[in-house]
Amino acid sequence: MEQKRFEKQLAFLVEADKMKTIFRRTRLITENRREDDAEHSWHFALTALVLLEYAKEDVDINHVIQMALVHDLVEVYAGDTFAYDEQGYQDKEQRELAAADKIFGLLPDEQGRRLRALWEEFEAFETKEACYANAIDRLQPFINNAKTQGHTWREGSVTSAQVYKRMDAVRLYAPELWPFVTAVIDDAIEKGYLKP
Amino acid sequence: MEQKRFEKQLAFLVEADKMKTIFRRTRLITENRREDDAEHSWHFALTALVLLEYAKEDVDINHVIQMALVHDLVEVYAGDTFAYDEQGYQDKEQRELAAADKIFGLLPDEQGRRLRALWEEFEAFETKEACYANAIDRLQPFINNAKTQGHTWREGSVTSAQVYKRMDAVRLYAPELWPFVTAVIDDAIEKGYLKP
Repeated sequence: MEQKRFEKQLAFLVEADKMKTIFRRTRLITENRREDDAEHSWHFALTALVLLEYAKEDVDINHVIQMALVHDLVEVYAGDTFAYDEQGYQDKEQRELAAADKIFGLLPDEQGRRLRALWEEFEAFETKEACYANAIDRLQPFINNAKTQGHTWREGSVTSAQVYKRMDAVRLYAPELWPFVTAVIDDAIEKGYLKP
Repeated sequence: MEQKRFEKQLAFLVEADKMKTIFRRTRLITENRREDDAEHSWHFALTALVLLEYAKEDVDINHVIQMALVHDLVEVYAGDTFAYDEQGYQDKEQRELAAADKIFGLLPDEQGRRLRALWEEFEAFETKEACYANAIDRLQPFINNAKTQGHTWREGSVTSAQVYKRMDAVRLYAPELWPFVTAVIDDAIEKGYLKP
């Protein structure tokens, strides 16, 4: 074992612990507190595994899961940007690129490049794995919203048009799940959780 | 899409959200609060990926990661059993078997069996993937302990003999990491975080 190499990997894993302190807008289903990035990443990976049969294309689930594990690591430095925060999205890319240099840069070079490539693939939204992964990354908090009377939507005065736009990845890359999405949105409008 | 089938999968994913409310003894590194099962499962999967080169045998990392995702799901009903709680371990198996029936039973039959098989493989500790997974499942909280002045050890009046026993999986299945483990234990004894 090369001691310096292991120390870099250890430093990365220690820094990754901070994912447990980055809070999202999403609420837990049974407790009224925000979900953090580590919890979300795990739930996203599990959801991708369980709902795999609904992926539009034949995807490599293991590649999707590895993407899920690393897709939010940049938020250790860049923070979470609320999905419906248009202002926050303006400098999101720049903030996250700098954060990626920092977090993946902790690892030995070739390993850092390998994990960063997974994040870049997820963000680029081009490969079939990245498309399915993005659909599930949006579906997981959507389910939590559906089960908490649209908590995040009410809190952020979100409109149904915004949710339709955000969830379009499900229509495109896991189309069999689309009727579930539209039914939840219709119900949320009817109950006043979402602005029409 | 078969509606009943999707409803079962959805019920499972909603129930899995409770992993975020099952707290372990392990402390976060930068905040003095306990880590929950969802956070641990994610950190375990990431650690397995990053430290793969130290696995004694050539393991299928994707299989290890899938095990990490489901290995603690039974705790939604059975609760977390502290690693050094000998009394809690007496009925752990029985409690967890009943919990496995319940949580994996939420899924469509063949899918529930598939995920349950991953958990059973992890618990049986026989395949090379299960052996490496168990080593990492123990290493992740060990790292957090090392970085929090042995918080869990001090709190539980744990002895170095107990930690040596618990960490033996690392010596056996990721032996290159053993010098790191013994160095941390030696340091913890010296500083009084662990009873000699």
